[in-house]
Amino acid sequence: MSSNRLKEDLIESGKIGRRPPIRVEGRDDLDPKNGVTRPAGTEENKKIKDYAVRRMKEAGLKVQIDQVGNIFGRKEGYKTDKGVVMVGSHLDSVLNGGMFDGVLGVFGGLEVIRRMEDEGFENERPIEVVAFMGEEGSAFHVSLLGSLVLVGNLDLDKALSMKNDEGVTLKDALQVIGYRGDFQRDLDDVEYMVELHVEQGPVLDVEKTSIGIVENITGMTWLMGTIEGRENHAGTTPMRMRADALVGAADIVSFVNRCANEMVSEQNGTTVATVGKLNVFPNGVNIVPGRVEMGIDIRDVVEENMRNLTNEIIEAFRAVEDKYGVRTEAEVLFVHPPTRLSEEVVKTIEESTQELGVSAKRMNSGAGHDSQNMAKRVKTGMIFVPSVDGISHSPREWTNWDDIENGVKVLTQTLKKLSKT
Amino acid sequence: MSSNRLKEDLIESGKIGRRPPIRVEGRDDLDPKNGVTRPAGTEENKKIKDYAVRRMKEAGLKVQIDQVGNIFGRKEGYKTDKGVVMVGSHLDSVLNGGMFDGVLGVFGGLEVIRRMEDEGFENERPIEVVAFMGEEGSAFHVSLLGSLVLVGNLDLDKALSMKNDEGVTLKDALQVIGYRGDFQRDLDDVEYMVELHVEQGPVLDVEKTSIGIVENITGMTWLMGTIEGRENHAGTTPMRMRADALVGAADIVSFVNRCANEMVSEQNGTTVATVGKLNVFPNGVNIVPGRVEMGIDIRDVVEENMRNLTNEIIEAFRAVEDKYGVRTEAEVLFVHPPTRLSEEVVKTIEESTQELGVSAKRMNSGAGHDSQNMAKRVKTGMIFVPSVDGISHSPREWTNWDDIENGVKVLTQTLKKLSKT
Repeated sequence: MSSNRLKEDLIESGKIGRRPPIRVEGRDDLDPKNGVTRPAGTEENKKIKDYAVRRMKEAGLKVQIDQVGNIFGRKEGYKTDKGVVMVGSHLDSVLNGGMFDGVLGVFGGLEVIRRMEDEGFENERPIEVVAFMGEEGSAFHVSLLGSLVLVGNLDLDKALSMKNDEGVTLKDALQVIGYRGDFQRDLDDVEYMVELHVEQGPVLDVEKTSIGIVENITGMTWLMGTIEGRENHAGTTPMRMRADALVGAADIVSFVNRCANEMVSEQNGTTVATVGKLNVFPNGVNIVPGRVEMGIDIRDVVEENMRNLTNEIIEAFRAVEDKYGVRTEAEVLFVHPPTRLSEEVVKTIEESTQELGVSAKRMNSGAGHDSQNMAKRVKTGMIFVPSVDGISHSPREWTNWDDIENGVKVLTQTLKKLSKT
Repeated sequence: MSSNRLKEDLIESGKIGRRPPIRVEGRDDLDPKNGVTRPAGTEENKKIKDYAVRRMKEAGLKVQIDQVGNIFGRKEGYKTDKGVVMVGSHLDSVLNGGMFDGVLGVFGGLEVIRRMEDEGFENERPIEVVAFMGEEGSAFHVSLLGSLVLVGNLDLDKALSMKNDEGVTLKDALQVIGYRGDFQRDLDDVEYMVELHVEQGPVLDVEKTSIGIVENITGMTWLMGTIEGRENHAGTTPMRMRADALVGAADIVSFVNRCANEMVSEQNGTTVATVGKLNVFPNGVNIVPGRVEMGIDIRDVVEENMRNLTNEIIEAFRAVEDKYGVRTEAEVLFVHPPTRLSEEVVKTIEESTQELGVSAKRMNSGAGHDSQNMAKRVKTGMIFVPSVDGISHSPREWTNWDDIENGVKVLTQTLKKLSKT
């Protein structure tokens, strides 16, 4: 059965980077301490790449590796003058992550080709299954690495000289695992890109919807803030003589949360803002905090909202200065603008769900994906399947097998359409 | 000159546990990275004990060491049936601390005896200069260790079996440094105790007052709180679906600060409350915080205030549960009630300042001291001298030499009176 073939790929690949290998028939078997760990360039990353290449070759694909380790498995089309349809995602993982994140898009794409073969479907356009290198940034600390280089937004030599925590360059790591190729994928030959991925959020699961059709990939701003107060003895320093950095930081945390909530309700929007990181110095129970460092994550599909919220938070830092006698700094580390995906591909996915009678909704992606880079050069779309409880980047990440089958069906139907347009 | 003799002791002892030894004539020479580090039972702790013992012997005192390493240097009185006047403090230090904390009380006490000798003053009562073992808790993680055992609030065998971070017991550490004695100090023979100490807070410095006469030593409650939310992806989790542990924690930080400030202004009181420690898990910029652990320090000289504030904070934790959909725990780790010092000794110190024409005020101690243990058994008082900018437990701790001389003068006058009553 075709569905078992994909399930086998997911279960087999899901054992790689996990110790000891576990049964994955149901969620009950998932050990919360036993996620998959396959950062780019590691031995475990090599193993899953080897597995994928073998399965691509068994499906009759021509496999090529480019200079940053992106893998392309090509099925020719019966017309020679038409641009490629790409399908895929990534094989690397975060530390202790889930088994579907990225992997589903690669093996789901391969399964589409195998089903086309089974059914005798003849694609006009060439189809290429792609496995991007280093999407997670868990080894070389830049996420979406493979697609960034592919679309030309990151210089190849700069990428190859990046180092992991062991001080090994990407170039050397690729050499060691045997994935430093010489293929050059010219995106002028590529017409479409479709990525099947787990949602990594709770929306589809909560709303009992099978398919998310991604219209926008959220933009992201990181704002790093510091509050400098006066470190003092918690017993001997009267309240009126304090400059407590953490009391100032608490105002910022509350402000960020309140502001994002207000923007959502006023605009019925999709703003999210999070103080995810907060470090207190010196962090002793009996010492008035002298310094707090904070990392703030701001996302929206509307760039103006991101800009406004960023500015309001920066003003909130300033307000804290007078209120508590502290000094503050707030610095924008980076701004990634939101990405609008191809309406043509969105409509094609939508039609596919309707033809198959699978419930679906248009939505946005709150996480970053290689598709946001690809969308700069080719017409790109994304298909989401539900994540149980919205959990991701965790060993408890899970997607039900029925939802995976729905996702692959929709992906197959979409690729059939796109490969004939 | 007598003043130079004490200064020499403070400068010489202030070089111990500091690398490289620095000049300490003025504050300009203080290197913020170069404080003194002499935790109980270390080689550096041995060195300062050796120095103190040598100086006690040079002053003609009979030195005895008890079973937890407390040092007693005795000058007999000319009446044999009268209880001892004790004077002293501690010689151990925090990591990277200041050179006067504790040390001033020991060498200041010794200087009093030398001045009595110089002046031909004859004390009726015996006087004992005491150096308590392990006041700071920087090695064996229990503060006021030596005085706790001395007054019988901590079992000797239990104390001796405590381990430092290297896993060495107090018993073995004392053996190695040569300060495991067999003297048994029976407090029934002791009538008074006076401790000269730096304020470690800003009050005397801000108010330009030379001497603080301590009436109460603050009580202290430590409340450890945990907030459990749901760890989630900061990009994919809509605001309305979050249970952000840090947003809950921010409410608590603000509440603790506001509540303590209100209590101070309503009662013109001395309440202080501090969230000094706060850890966020997993503490990634792009992850909604799943868990926050907090350490809260609550102090007052009025025990009822401590109890009320503790209860209000525990209620605030509960309130956060409903508001943000998180679970909380708040646990009182310990309650040390406030200590009232001896009014007789307080008055004696006060008279001494008046006779000497030195500015003074009655105040409370916001920090803990060995005197709070001693006060359970003998009539006890404390004399504070100003800490510049209120800084303590820091290499930047400083007290001006004039203030030190004033403190020793008042201590001398006080001991003259007490030793004749």
